[in-house]
Amino acid sequence: MGDPIKDNSASPATGFVFAADLGGTHLRAASVDETGQIHFRLKHDTPRADSAAEIVRSLVLAARECTTQTNAQAGRTCDFKAISVAVPGTVNVAQGIVVTAPNLRCLDGFPLTAALTEELQRPAVLENDANAAAVGEMWRGAGRGHTTIVCVTLGTGVGGGIILDGKLWRGVDGAAAEIGHMGVDPFGGVACGCGSRGCLEVYASATAIVRMTREASPRYPDSTLRSCEHLSAENIYGAGVAGDELALEVFRRMGVYLGIGLANLINIINPEMIVIGGGVANGWDLFEKYMQQQVAERAFPLLAARVKIVRAECGDDAGLLGAAKLGFGM
Amino acid sequence: MGDPIKDNSASPATGFVFAADLGGTHLRAASVDETGQIHFRLKHDTPRADSAAEIVRSLVLAARECTTQTNAQAGRTCDFKAISVAVPGTVNVAQGIVVTAPNLRCLDGFPLTAALTEELQRPAVLENDANAAAVGEMWRGAGRGHTTIVCVTLGTGVGGGIILDGKLWRGVDGAAAEIGHMGVDPFGGVACGCGSRGCLEVYASATAIVRMTREASPRYPDSTLRSCEHLSAENIYGAGVAGDELALEVFRRMGVYLGIGLANLINIINPEMIVIGGGVANGWDLFEKYMQQQVAERAFPLLAARVKIVRAECGDDAGLLGAAKLGFGM
Repeated sequence: MGDPIKDNSASPATGFVFAADLGGTHLRAASVDETGQIHFRLKHDTPRADSAAEIVRSLVLAARECTTQTNAQAGRTCDFKAISVAVPGTVNVAQGIVVTAPNLRCLDGFPLTAALTEELQRPAVLENDANAAAVGEMWRGAGRGHTTIVCVTLGTGVGGGIILDGKLWRGVDGAAAEIGHMGVDPFGGVACGCGSRGCLEVYASATAIVRMTREASPRYPDSTLRSCEHLSAENIYGAGVAGDELALEVFRRMGVYLGIGLANLINIINPEMIVIGGGVANGWDLFEKYMQQQVAERAFPLLAARVKIVRAECGDDAGLLGAAKLGFGM
Repeated sequence: MGDPIKDNSASPATGFVFAADLGGTHLRAASVDETGQIHFRLKHDTPRADSAAEIVRSLVLAARECTTQTNAQAGRTCDFKAISVAVPGTVNVAQGIVVTAPNLRCLDGFPLTAALTEELQRPAVLENDANAAAVGEMWRGAGRGHTTIVCVTLGTGVGGGIILDGKLWRGVDGAAAEIGHMGVDPFGGVACGCGSRGCLEVYASATAIVRMTREASPRYPDSTLRSCEHLSAENIYGAGVAGDELALEVFRRMGVYLGIGLANLINIINPEMIVIGGGVANGWDLFEKYMQQQVAERAFPLLAARVKIVRAECGDDAGLLGAAKLGFGM
């Protein structure tokens, strides 16, 4: 059953949601109460299965484990109100169907909420993972007390979630907030997996950080990264902190492109806050200055003065917490 | 009193709004009923005044003229419910204050609704002109029957209005939908009046059409436009229709940049429809193909397949009609 982690905190809770963040690599799951407290959590590998039934089975087992452990901790049978799953893809929230999940193809078109409700006899809800992360940050993270925020998740790819007046804006097909596929260098930009060129994702994702480092490497003969066998956004960041010029240049560029993208979002949406999450956000002190500079140069002064651009606070739990909040009926 | 135009249509109406579209050049005003029928309209020059009082006086006179004429047409005293004004600038809708109006500086910070209500003894509402145009198009134009639309107005500048689930999205400062200031060529792009570079406005406004024609002119020695004393988007379009290569190249470029901007909007907002209005939209048949091509190449296929990109239908009346709808309490 993977890697169960007990959470020491235990406040008296009236009800729980079983929340899951179904990633292409890991399935993270937890029992979460109405205050956002995680009572029990686990993490294991997403099954390398090509059948939706296997994914459902994995979620059901995780839900049972969370329920059992949470009941044991509480010394009573807890009230699990709902199952809520964050999925890496486009979802039809109203119908509970995964429309398309590029990293979990077996779920394309699959009625996941119906399958989970049948197995677990509870209402089930689905949400896109980046949307869920935005909800999580608004509920328990950097966006607390705000109602109009844009959340940008800089991970393997770049995802986004837009919350307007306290409500997720999903678009008419549940596919809004594709912030990673805003063109930030439409001419001469790098080709993107989506078919376009110069998308934010090809400059600000972890994948992009590694690619840009490889590309620029010949110009930095003294870089310690040239001898690094397994480049990652983490070790490139580490090199930058130690003063490596190649790493610093890569995060500078990343900050410039990110700032251009954020300026567009600010001019279009006029949000209170932009929350930057995902693994690459850990490079904050290396890219923040360049990001802010572009925002100052490109966004309308009134809007740029208003918006707070901050780091996410929920870390890997953002999606899980957001799913939980949606399970309670955000 | 300028240029009053009688409207022949006259349906039985239960109530009217006095709507005004206050432009930098013209003040257009009308009595509009709940079906969107214009019963009387007038158009005169916006007073070249540096006092807000003069603007208020002009609006009050226009309202009285509209009321008198509408009553005369109806043969009775009609019920004018409200005054509603579309303003070329950022407005605080809740407080009825013009925050900033670059072409009518005397209104900056002015409590326009309070002044109008005092004079006319009716509730008054304000709206940004591009937002009002979006409402007008949704109510009586190309967006009829839709609830999530983006309206792009290609005029002297480029404005925008975003309607989500039937409600205007104004942003937290009433300054959202600055679509003209999305970067579509952030690197190497032309400087924009807003302080940024490569904004949509410097490629897709009437001003931009003229500038791009002048810039490209040396490369087109045979163009009829080279001898044209007063270049305008209209006569450049006319030359394009007649086969002028310079004009065709300018509208091709404009279409490419517009398409890049629309692809961004589609990926961020996932709207049902994008409505293109303003004078430059008259060049539709010269730029549409290039615009659509960029959308097809750059927007997510699911979203691009869904969105309808269409021409506006209300012409110069979009702002007036939108103001009226807002006056009735959209």
